[in-house]
Amino acid sequence: MIKRPLPEPAALQQQYAAALLSDVLPFWETHSIDPEGGFLTCLDRRGEVYDTDKFVWLQARQVWTFSMLYNRLERRPSWLDIARHGAEFLRAHGRDGDGNWYFSLNRDGDPLVQPYNIFTDCFAAMAFGQYALATGDDEARHIALTSFRNVLRRRDNPKGIYSKAVSWSRPMRSFAHPMMLLNLSRELKEFIPPDEWESMNDGWAKEITDLFIDRETGLVFEHVSPDGSHPDTFEGRLLNPGHGLEGMWFLMELALERNDTALAAKSVDTILRILEFAWDREHGGIFAFMDAHGKPLQQLEWDQKMWWVHLETLLALLMGSVRLGRQECWTWFERLHEYTWQHFPDPEYGEWFGYLNRRGEVLLPIKGGKWKGCFHVPRCLYRCSELLKGPFPS
Amino acid sequence: MIKRPLPEPAALQQQYAAALLSDVLPFWETHSIDPEGGFLTCLDRRGEVYDTDKFVWLQARQVWTFSMLYNRLERRPSWLDIARHGAEFLRAHGRDGDGNWYFSLNRDGDPLVQPYNIFTDCFAAMAFGQYALATGDDEARHIALTSFRNVLRRRDNPKGIYSKAVSWSRPMRSFAHPMMLLNLSRELKEFIPPDEWESMNDGWAKEITDLFIDRETGLVFEHVSPDGSHPDTFEGRLLNPGHGLEGMWFLMELALERNDTALAAKSVDTILRILEFAWDREHGGIFAFMDAHGKPLQQLEWDQKMWWVHLETLLALLMGSVRLGRQECWTWFERLHEYTWQHFPDPEYGEWFGYLNRRGEVLLPIKGGKWKGCFHVPRCLYRCSELLKGPFPS
Repeated sequence: MIKRPLPEPAALQQQYAAALLSDVLPFWETHSIDPEGGFLTCLDRRGEVYDTDKFVWLQARQVWTFSMLYNRLERRPSWLDIARHGAEFLRAHGRDGDGNWYFSLNRDGDPLVQPYNIFTDCFAAMAFGQYALATGDDEARHIALTSFRNVLRRRDNPKGIYSKAVSWSRPMRSFAHPMMLLNLSRELKEFIPPDEWESMNDGWAKEITDLFIDRETGLVFEHVSPDGSHPDTFEGRLLNPGHGLEGMWFLMELALERNDTALAAKSVDTILRILEFAWDREHGGIFAFMDAHGKPLQQLEWDQKMWWVHLETLLALLMGSVRLGRQECWTWFERLHEYTWQHFPDPEYGEWFGYLNRRGEVLLPIKGGKWKGCFHVPRCLYRCSELLKGPFPS
Repeated sequence: MIKRPLPEPAALQQQYAAALLSDVLPFWETHSIDPEGGFLTCLDRRGEVYDTDKFVWLQARQVWTFSMLYNRLERRPSWLDIARHGAEFLRAHGRDGDGNWYFSLNRDGDPLVQPYNIFTDCFAAMAFGQYALATGDDEARHIALTSFRNVLRRRDNPKGIYSKAVSWSRPMRSFAHPMMLLNLSRELKEFIPPDEWESMNDGWAKEITDLFIDRETGLVFEHVSPDGSHPDTFEGRLLNPGHGLEGMWFLMELALERNDTALAAKSVDTILRILEFAWDREHGGIFAFMDAHGKPLQQLEWDQKMWWVHLETLLALLMGSVRLGRQECWTWFERLHEYTWQHFPDPEYGEWFGYLNRRGEVLLPIKGGKWKGCFHVPRCLYRCSELLKGPFPS
């Protein structure tokens, strides 16, 4: 395959912005609004609804996306209407009597799956945080903060009564928690006292650098022992490259804000290290899961190429290129950009495919489902289009 | 590809028996016995241990396999020793204080995952049932029956406190339960009063034929509403062809014993219907999961070709051919035999691969893991080699 040189940054910026505004957002605006309330996110290739279950992660993420774009890109009333449409549904149906967020609801809003998953509360807090910024709605702000405090309170036992793990025999910590909290606290920064905000983020950044970025290999482990060691077990060896790459741009963002050049460099070095390890040299793309020792995995989808992994990586690399001037990031960005734009967008029916097999062929012809909704694609397109405006390091 | 005609039944019988005795059993005898107790089932392509966690499903299934072969094929003392080695470990470490079976243990036998899974109790009951038959050990018989009664008692709420489903909003029944109970009660037939045994099996057979085999499509649904209807949801549309095919030979076995020709014919018709629907006409093999309406699935592994699915199908088809004289079963058996023997056995290092991608390439180069152990391969090889002895219908 002949490698075409990338277009100039201004043209690239145009490409990302146009995809967001003329392709991706219209797809969700057209197909996902349920007149009965909330969003229908199980959309097939053409945007037709193939299932009406409502997964609270995706309801909340869509509220977040439209609120965030309203706050940061353009105060378009129709975007706020969509955010309100989802927020009202969530407010009415999303929580149990204790304020915990259900994992899924049926079309009418009746709960289907209990609040076993702490990330649902995280996405709800993000959604209502951005929605409160957009509307000044005090109740939304209250919901965001209550959900955030719930997450902090539940963190040491996130699955609570639904946990199947025996607590004492192999205690493990998950990278997903400090990673998510780093991002969530940034979302709610306006609502958290500055001292508390700084000290929380100190803790999570330290947890990530001390425990999860492995000193020896430079890789991000998905689970570690409380002392940061790596038990030689399925969970202890597991790498989730997409998580590592996404988490590193969360960390880089904090480092950039604090002018912490050592932390920023560590984030970028880790991104490059993960890519070296997780890039599929045979078929291109980034593997979904890997074993740090190259042992066989439990995850049967380990070799699949997933949209969010590639999108988070584009954003991480562009941040490293533009904000830190790291040439290796731009070199990798070119490769990722080629792969991602060649494989994921669907020029025929719009929006992006989510799940490809190892060879890059479409595995599930969906635009939305249980885990893919209106979130990673628009977030990446928006953030990349902003970064591509420069200024570029000379 | 030129289709070679199958060898004569006597040669086929030899092929299945030799694979069992000269390849598959020696692999587990050589590599899986943990001198510290129990079995190491996470074995890579060469038989080397790549993880030491002990999954109770697989501990129990290996006890069952060696006990069953001792009971039915040959009273080889080394087989009984292996069964005892596993049974002792399970007896010492496998249960919580209430007699429920943990899902997994570490190498030393400390519990890792709580008894959330009712099938663990099923496999433990099967294991101790065959082991009790082999040894006459009263305690083993007691463990088998207690576990069986526990399964019956827990059946209406199998995950108990670990269930994440909201009970009232979408009650569903799972095919896996009556299917498993049909097989389990056959395993424990010697220990259950005949009247009770007959009436239990009447109930489960009726449940399968009335609720799970769909009148309209002839397919077996994985989950149905309590009235047998199919809600248009991910779970309500789900087909697990391997489960359907395996369950149908359990049902055929009951029908043959009872000389219930209508039920036997229904089992075979369902097998053929599932195969027509679930055979991959592009790459061969049987899909792991399908949607009854052809909608996209949640299961990312839906297009993979799994060992157990193909082995259960070989056995189901051979039973239909030999015991019922159904020509269509033989025609399909030839096709399945070709596909299975071409793709799953590993002539280089012995035993069989478990997980292939859609094209039939090895996806995970393991002989054992969290779900694959010493069970489906030897059970199928043994049962097929017995059926191939005939007599054949004229």
